[in-house]
Amino acid sequence: MTVTEDMGESLLPLPGASQTPEKRKWRVGWLLLAAAFLIQFHINMWYLHHHHNTGPKPPPNPPNPQWPAEAVQAAQLAAAHWCSGNGNVFADTLAVNADGTPVCECDDCFSGPDCSVAVPACIVNADSGNPLLFEAFWRANPDLGTAVIPGWYRLGYLPKPGAETFYNDAFIDAVRGMHTLVGNAVTEGRYILVGTGSMQLVNAVVHSLALQNPETVSPVVARAPYYSAYKIQTDMFNSSLYTWAGEPEDALTASKRPGVQIELIASPNNPTFQIQELGDVHGHVVYDHAYYWPHLTPITEKYDHDIMLFTLSKATGHAGSRIGWAIIKDPDLYAKMEYYLMISTLGVSHDSQFRATQLLKSVINSYSKPQKSSDKQGIFHYGREVLQSRWARLQSIVKGSSRFTLQELKPEYCHFFKEQSGLSPGYAWLHCEREEDADCADVMLKAGIIGRPGTEFGASSRYVRLALLDRQSSFDNLAARLSDLAAQP
Amino acid sequence: MTVTEDMGESLLPLPGASQTPEKRKWRVGWLLLAAAFLIQFHINMWYLHHHHNTGPKPPPNPPNPQWPAEAVQAAQLAAAHWCSGNGNVFADTLAVNADGTPVCECDDCFSGPDCSVAVPACIVNADSGNPLLFEAFWRANPDLGTAVIPGWYRLGYLPKPGAETFYNDAFIDAVRGMHTLVGNAVTEGRYILVGTGSMQLVNAVVHSLALQNPETVSPVVARAPYYSAYKIQTDMFNSSLYTWAGEPEDALTASKRPGVQIELIASPNNPTFQIQELGDVHGHVVYDHAYYWPHLTPITEKYDHDIMLFTLSKATGHAGSRIGWAIIKDPDLYAKMEYYLMISTLGVSHDSQFRATQLLKSVINSYSKPQKSSDKQGIFHYGREVLQSRWARLQSIVKGSSRFTLQELKPEYCHFFKEQSGLSPGYAWLHCEREEDADCADVMLKAGIIGRPGTEFGASSRYVRLALLDRQSSFDNLAARLSDLAAQP
Repeated sequence: MTVTEDMGESLLPLPGASQTPEKRKWRVGWLLLAAAFLIQFHINMWYLHHHHNTGPKPPPNPPNPQWPAEAVQAAQLAAAHWCSGNGNVFADTLAVNADGTPVCECDDCFSGPDCSVAVPACIVNADSGNPLLFEAFWRANPDLGTAVIPGWYRLGYLPKPGAETFYNDAFIDAVRGMHTLVGNAVTEGRYILVGTGSMQLVNAVVHSLALQNPETVSPVVARAPYYSAYKIQTDMFNSSLYTWAGEPEDALTASKRPGVQIELIASPNNPTFQIQELGDVHGHVVYDHAYYWPHLTPITEKYDHDIMLFTLSKATGHAGSRIGWAIIKDPDLYAKMEYYLMISTLGVSHDSQFRATQLLKSVINSYSKPQKSSDKQGIFHYGREVLQSRWARLQSIVKGSSRFTLQELKPEYCHFFKEQSGLSPGYAWLHCEREEDADCADVMLKAGIIGRPGTEFGASSRYVRLALLDRQSSFDNLAARLSDLAAQP
Repeated sequence: MTVTEDMGESLLPLPGASQTPEKRKWRVGWLLLAAAFLIQFHINMWYLHHHHNTGPKPPPNPPNPQWPAEAVQAAQLAAAHWCSGNGNVFADTLAVNADGTPVCECDDCFSGPDCSVAVPACIVNADSGNPLLFEAFWRANPDLGTAVIPGWYRLGYLPKPGAETFYNDAFIDAVRGMHTLVGNAVTEGRYILVGTGSMQLVNAVVHSLALQNPETVSPVVARAPYYSAYKIQTDMFNSSLYTWAGEPEDALTASKRPGVQIELIASPNNPTFQIQELGDVHGHVVYDHAYYWPHLTPITEKYDHDIMLFTLSKATGHAGSRIGWAIIKDPDLYAKMEYYLMISTLGVSHDSQFRATQLLKSVINSYSKPQKSSDKQGIFHYGREVLQSRWARLQSIVKGSSRFTLQELKPEYCHFFKEQSGLSPGYAWLHCEREEDADCADVMLKAGIIGRPGTEFGASSRYVRLALLDRQSSFDNLAARLSDLAAQP
């Protein structure tokens, strides 16, 4: 698609889309703006071209500074495409209408060429912990976290000549900066490894711990309710080195050659969001701190566990970038995990690490400047506000009914916000109270809500996990369905 | 770092760097250019800001079109930073000099603040297949393949609402377009999976094939010399489902419960670059076509094997993006591989897929336009020219000595270039002929060359693999060292 075609589609009205006068005005305004922009662009181009030809001949290396222009324009035009606030067009949106204009990618439960039509009786998907609530934050702060990546950016397997790891040093620096800002984990003097999401790191750490005792089969355990992926992933790899063993007390009976126990624990817990701290435990403990960020839970202390996992997904919302990191004390474990990451995927995408660096730096910068009242809200303030309001709404629905109960969470003093923080969990862990509602996920499904059954977390089918991390429209749908259900006799 | 600081550093001379008059002229020219650009930028900003305030008030969704400006400027300034053609500065270059200017990331065997100093007696690393020769191509075509990614781009695990796979449809479309352009593989009616590099896909396919017979242990085999990672990866995963079994004839004795044999075969072969075609074979064959691109080997036919692997790394040089793809016929295998990719890494980075789409599209576009004599060279022409000249130089060095021999390759008619294509392999498979040179890799090492020993490919230690895919300066060093060695009595 040429830039000119691209330009046309994003600024002209879409066929079949009903045009309110306000929207028409908006389109005309943007059309003028874009035209002005295009003129400036051509002036720049002419100026630079002219200067380029008369100035000193540059060596072959430095490119004409207009090199990003075409890609920037495509991104700008996609960003300006209006999908009624219920969808997106990106520069790589593939589907096009008969006239060549891109087809809006509509959010769940919306349709129509500009996503303005709410799908009636749409089933709400509250199964996945997809952190889409952050999309609105980044949309509202479009100048933050943009990644501009030239074609010659870090082609090699290693990020730069002489690098000893697959990790970009600017990204590691941003990770340390983020933990310093938030005060949720010690990074000084610790090893940091980057994985293709914390999902890859869970197996990297399990595999590497088990490899420290290669003659045995290490039992992998978790206390229910535990994050469902721990069991699924451990089972899938079908390793000779370790095996899923359920609850810690079952570990010794799981194998004929039992090795050192590896316990996986999410804190805050997924699904309950309770903070979990183990005292003396046999074997290794892997702390999955995916949700230990101030928009999701009060930051009560700076953790310094032997093995800690974090992920970009729940910090800034960028699940699709597949970036997680591990903070490790033991050099032998670090070396074994590095080897695992090298042999399984030859490291981690430099492109993702670059983007993640820009995103984390924008968060750090936004909280490092002295706040003025005119300043926009930082991401942690935004996230907490959204999730607190969702939790409050959910609580009022559930309290009005004897059919369900929610997990109990208690407010704590948050060292990041420097105040007693309200509750803003990412999941509701709902319990069905009626005798006939023994399969709570099924009760939800009949009411048009897809939740994740308690059984997947090693718990009773009377529980269901409902994700609260989706876009606002999705949460509104969820709340409406739950209200209806609560109101049923 | 602020934009202003960034601006200063990239355009002013670096401290301690010796300034030739030509370079000084170049710097002044660029300084003027940048100043002009900055003025234009501020005019644009003022204009847009003014217009923005007086025009119709847009809905909250469309961002001020200047949103990418800061990130673009940082990228432009990094790109314009001069490292003598022997290094790079990127927007995320972390190290800075005492005055805040970024420290050039020097290529192997160069040092100094602007990478102008060749390191004497530098050891040449020809071990890795790092495809850095392509860096110069993308540098010379800076307008091609740029990725501009806004903060709100595809946050979720799935690329868009309702998506059934982790794969971006525009990327899959570009992959099909690339194979159509080159004519190297059938994609019509085939499943395409995307992995975190083809490295992840090798295990995904081995694991998934083995899972089709879960009660047995599938022998994983390869005919020597084979790509060293096949064995290393298969061993590392320590699976109960499959085991490394070496040569195909050894497969049946490798396990007490032998399953269906899984044969891994690279064609062109890594290390020899011979085309390999198996006839009737017991069990499954996985064709790794990483090197089946016209800059590396003549395209003699459009392959249509049951299981084919490709990677961005050897097609465009972007190894660091960790993007590979599999072309699959069997829907059951496809489903099992999808599951493996989901459970091991929750899919593949959307950021990398986006960038890969832009890169592949730029290649497709460059070859789709009618070629004019003024047009720049396409990537396949560039790559073939570079590698042919390297191979010719290597052959002349080796032919002048009785100490070594190189693998024999024969030219073929290439359907892409529509001509008999010369030889342009990515690796030299060198054989040491002298009786005392039984450890050929050691002979190389003593001459200042790191190669990969033949034993890692299941072959004799009289062989060594030397990678020819690095930057030109690195190859020049390699050729010089080999010449010296060949000249020794």
